[in-house]
Formats: sequence, C-alpha cells, structure tokens
Amino acid sequence: MKRRAFVKGAATAGVAATAAAASSFPAPAISQGRKQWKLAMSWPLNAPGLGTSGQRVAKRITQLSGGKIDVKVYGGGELVPAFGVFDAVSAGDADMYMSAEYYWQGKHKAFNFFTAVPYGLTGLETHAWMKYAGGQELWDELSADFGLKGFLGASTGTQMGGWYRKPIEKLDDFKGLKFRMPGIGGEVLRELGVTVVNLPVAEIYPSLASGAIDAAEWVGPWHDLAFGFYKITKHYFYPGFHEPGTCGSFAINKKLWDSLTKDEQLIVTMAIEAEAQIQGAEFNARNLGSLNVLLNKHKVQMHRYPDDMLIEIGNIAGQVVSDIGNSSPIAKRVYDSFIDYRKQAITWAKIGEQGFMNARLLPFKYG
Amino acid sequence: MKRRAFVKGAATAGVAATAAAASSFPAPAISQGRKQWKLAMSWPLNAPGLGTSGQRVAKRITQLSGGKIDVKVYGGGELVPAFGVFDAVSAGDADMYMSAEYYWQGKHKAFNFFTAVPYGLTGLETHAWMKYAGGQELWDELSADFGLKGFLGASTGTQMGGWYRKPIEKLDDFKGLKFRMPGIGGEVLRELGVTVVNLPVAEIYPSLASGAIDAAEWVGPWHDLAFGFYKITKHYFYPGFHEPGTCGSFAINKKLWDSLTKDEQLIVTMAIEAEAQIQGAEFNARNLGSLNVLLNKHKVQMHRYPDDMLIEIGNIAGQVVSDIGNSSPIAKRVYDSFIDYRKQAITWAKIGEQGFMNARLLPFKYG
Repeated sequence: MKRRAFVKGAATAGVAATAAAASSFPAPAISQGRKQWKLAMSWPLNAPGLGTSGQRVAKRITQLSGGKIDVKVYGGGELVPAFGVFDAVSAGDADMYMSAEYYWQGKHKAFNFFTAVPYGLTGLETHAWMKYAGGQELWDELSADFGLKGFLGASTGTQMGGWYRKPIEKLDDFKGLKFRMPGIGGEVLRELGVTVVNLPVAEIYPSLASGAIDAAEWVGPWHDLAFGFYKITKHYFYPGFHEPGTCGSFAINKKLWDSLTKDEQLIVTMAIEAEAQIQGAEFNARNLGSLNVLLNKHKVQMHRYPDDMLIEIGNIAGQVVSDIGNSSPIAKRVYDSFIDYRKQAITWAKIGEQGFMNARLLPFKYG
Repeated sequence: MKRRAFVKGAATAGVAATAAAASSFPAPAISQGRKQWKLAMSWPLNAPGLGTSGQRVAKRITQLSGGKIDVKVYGGGELVPAFGVFDAVSAGDADMYMSAEYYWQGKHKAFNFFTAVPYGLTGLETHAWMKYAGGQELWDELSADFGLKGFLGASTGTQMGGWYRKPIEKLDDFKGLKFRMPGIGGEVLRELGVTVVNLPVAEIYPSLASGAIDAAEWVGPWHDLAFGFYKITKHYFYPGFHEPGTCGSFAINKKLWDSLTKDEQLIVTMAIEAEAQIQGAEFNARNLGSLNVLLNKHKVQMHRYPDDMLIEIGNIAGQVVSDIGNSSPIAKRVYDSFIDYRKQAITWAKIGEQGFMNARLLPFKYG
C-alpha cells in the first residue's frame, strides 16, 4: 500500500467492527446486557497486517459473542496516543490494546522479553516458551501489577537489519551514525557509538530521505516496501539480529478479564490464538512476495553483516540483555527462564528446522 | 508417556468432549436443535499432541456453540479404522476427521502437497502458502470431488531422519535396508534401493527391536522419546529431509459445512486456526525438551547425513515430486503453485529467519 494512505489511516475515525458481523447469532445471554469494548491500537487502523489484524480480532469477538461484546477499534492517536494504550487499558479508559510489549520498557524493563530480544528467540520459539515453558506465567505476574492481562500476538518473522544511506563495512563504521532503532536493539547499537533515535512511524521516511538520519529499520520486506524506503537507498542489510521473531501483543484490563465468564474468556483467547496463526502466516507470505519485488523490480541490494561484526554485536547484546536481567528480581526470573529456553531451542533448531533449511540450500535439482 | 499407554489409548471408548464444557453458555439458537458430530481421528485418543489436540478442538467447538454442536471424538479404530476416516467423512458416516492429507495419496497423489513434501516447505511456509498464496483454493477444489472441506492443522516442526540399528555412512549403505517411512519420503528411499515398509504405529517399535526392519522414522524427539526407540539403538539421524514441516489436517463433510451458518463456520474455522497455533508451539517446546532428555539422559548419538548423500537424495526428491506434479492436471497446478512459493520462500528464509538462526550460532558470549 502507499505510504500516504498508510499514514493517513491514523487520522480516520474509529471503525465499529460489527458492521457485517453478528447477523445470524441470536444474542446468547453470555452476560447481562450489551458490552461496548474499546480496543486501542498503537498503529493506524489500516496498517497492513497490524491494524487489519486488530480489526479482525475485534470483529470475531463481536461475532462469536452474538454482538453482546461489541468491540470498537481505534487506531493510534484516535482514542489515546499510540503509546498511551498501556495506561489507558490499565486505568480502564480503554478495554483492550493491541501493541508490542517492548514499548513498555519504561514501565518495566522485563517487558522487553515478551516481544523481541537481540539474538534471542524466533517467533515460534517465543510462542512455545511463553505458552509451554513458563513465559506466560511470568508475564501474567508482571502485568498484574499494572492491572493488565496479556496475550501474545503474531510474529512478524525475523525483521530486517535496516536501510543504510551508505553501506557500512566494518564495526568502526557504526561510530557516529544516526540510526532509527527502538528497544534493546537500539541499546546495543548505542554501545557501538551509534546515535540512536526512536522516531514515530510517520517520521522515519522523511528523516531518512533528508539525511537527518543515516539508517533506519522498520519491520520486514512487506512493510518496508509499503513505506517506499527503496526510493531513498538501495542498501538493505540483514540479518535483523535485533528482532529475530518480534511478536505483537494484546492486553485486556485485568478486572474486566476476571469478570468475564469462562465462555467469554474462551472467545477472547481463541480469537487471539487464531490471529497469531493466520497473521503469522500472512507475514511469511507478504514478506517473501515483497522481497521479490524489492529485489527484482526495485533492484535493492542485499548486504549481509560480516561475521566479525555479528560476533561483536552478539557479545554486546549478551551483555545488554544480561544487564536487563539483573535490573530487578522479576527481570532476573524472566531472564533465567528465557536463557534456559534459548539454549535448548538452539540445540533443537540446528537439528530440526534450521538443519533442514541449510540442507535445502545444497546444490540439487528441484522444481 | 509410556508406549503401552499410548497404544492402549486406541482401544478406549470415545470420549464426549462436552464433559466440562457448555456450562455458562445458554444454548444460543445457532440452528434448530442439538447436533451430534462425530470427529474421527487417525490416532489414539490420548496420543500426545495429536489425540489431545483433536479433543481440545472438539471441546472448544462444543463450548463456543453453547453445546448446540456436540462434538464426540473417536480415536483410530473406534468408529472406523485409523485410515478409514476419509471415506467415513466423505460418506457422512462421520462428520469430521483429524488426520494428515498424505495418507490419502491412494485417493489422489496431489494430497501429498498439503502435508509434507521432501525438501519442500517448513510448517510456517506451508501455512502461508495455503492461506495466502493459493494452496487452500487448490485443496478445496481437490477435496470437493470427495465431498470434503479441509483445514490445515498444526505443524509438528521438521521431523527427524530416523533411528538406524547400524549407522550408515554413504549412499550405497541404503541398498537393501528395510526402512519404515511413509509418503513421498518412502518413494525417494525406494529409488536408493531401500525396501520401504509403512507399518502402523503400534508395530514400529517391535519391528525395529526384533531387527525385522533396520531403520524407522516416526515423528520428532517428543514422540520418539515417548515411544522409547532409544532403548533399541542410539543412532538418530537428521535432518528429516522427507518431512520438513509436516502439517496435520481436519476435514468436515462438505454438505454439512455448506449447511452451517456463518457463525457456526467461524467457530469451526477459529477453533482449528487456534489449534494450529498452540499445538505448533507445543511441538516446539516438547521437541526441544525431549531432545534434551534423549541427548543427556539416554546418550543418544546424533548423526547428520553427509552433504553428498543429502544432495543425491535432493536430486531424487526433485524428480519424484515432479513426477507427482505431472500425474494429473490438478496435481500439475498444485505442483506449480507449490514450486513457485518454495522458490521465493527459500530466498526469504536465507535473509530472514534462517539467516538469523545461522548468525545466532556464531561464537559470542550470551547467557
């Protein structure tokens, strides 16, 4: 989609998710009366794969509850500012948010682990750790302090390393660069002498175009193509060490959550689980299609960070992540659980999926 | 779980999924009357991650429909034989099945593409191709001829190459081996001089133990640990070129599907999408935990197939898969769509997730 349309979407009015829904369901008495829920997102309503995903979740909850839970969706800046959704849901001014937990590192550093960690887990591994190896329980404990109950959303897949106005070749080239990168990834770059900035979505393109910044990462090929960065520069770096499997999140006001019936809780839970599945698949399909366009139509040039840079970045990332783990008792428990899962995940990946993907690159005739 | 308990499960009675469900939902009038659905599986009721998954889907459909669609689950052999579920649902003797489409290659070879293809797609890629790049539409077309509507289930992750009583070292060692491997993977091995057998689940262990077969693949570490193959031999091979991202499937009788309201269709669709998400995550978590036990407690020895073997297997796989693609007009359309997606998926994987996972193995200090 066009960048202008994307940005413009932030300013359009909230869309009731019920438009075409709740037709044949005869209003089951899930609870007394009709509830109006506000779902506030950290991105525009029509942001591809993000805003559209929040709208689908809202519509499905509305439909499955027979319209008894009528979820209205607000893009970033409509009900509250994009990054104000946490406080709004915490205070009960909104009922749910769709966002990403690393935006809340100012509230608590441990939130970082529930979105993306440099050199951490892939999307599938993150979901597996969260649901089956203790991650969700730790998140629940942390979120409860803020009056929230969180749910893991879809993974974007491994993100890209970013767009550089001028390609870099060695570690020293990072020094003095102005780079748009949020979260812990930005902390890692800072250690390398980078001036890290965290610009809102709408400012990334003009800042890179004007030379106000030298480099920027946004998401992956799908979103990067939509934003048109290839018009500014052809230098596209990988792998995205900083966000290996970025997962979105949903959260609901905890008092509201606790007040729901088991059936209502199941509707919310299932709508988000299903969304993680189909949006995750959509990211794969759109990313590879968009990469194809970037490479073959727009002649974008791929650069892999050289090994010595990746190693030094890894050492710094290890230290930065460990520092976060040592910043509080609960951060330590999250860190220990995360590191333990990561260690086993690497062993399995080498033998399983990564082992296969590497074998798939061997020179044989196929297709 | 113990192998005995696993096998025994096949003989227990069908379990109504409604036991603890449908409590607070006040029976919405989704349609007139209460429907009893029979969900027949190709595995035992309590098979870890398979039978338990089918039971969860049934329970959720029952709960979300307020008990109006009361889904009763049958393990393989209870209502119909394990591999009789396709015909049963096609004829309307059962309403849904949970299975894997490559079991139906005797009905039509093109079904293979919707489960696993040697050197094909990973689990995520398969889901992405199916939902966002034309795979589902082709499957719908194929299934409609058999009176079925199919839904893709969870991926097991990349499966393992198998257990060998004596490790092999070169391509020539395949000659004369008796190997349990189903599907197209078995066809590939046959070309290498292997005597391929497709034993039912319960016969794999005794056959390998007695030496009646020389090698066997089952699923991945989770299921292989549960079956106790490590007691027979320590030689465990990877990568599982034959099943890189095996996906399960659900199917519903097409007339029944077409008769459902939009809301009922959404309940079924969402329950299966959600299951693909959480069962897929469970496979990752259980596989890595089980691999840890196999390696460290049972001292299993991992063997990677050497590159020259993997290349020759790749050449044969490419030919076998192409032959299937040329076996009929619809198989050709499925093959072309699949090959096109695979090509782009490989380009994206190298730069995205696979590129990251390889960088994650570089020697830096972390955790």
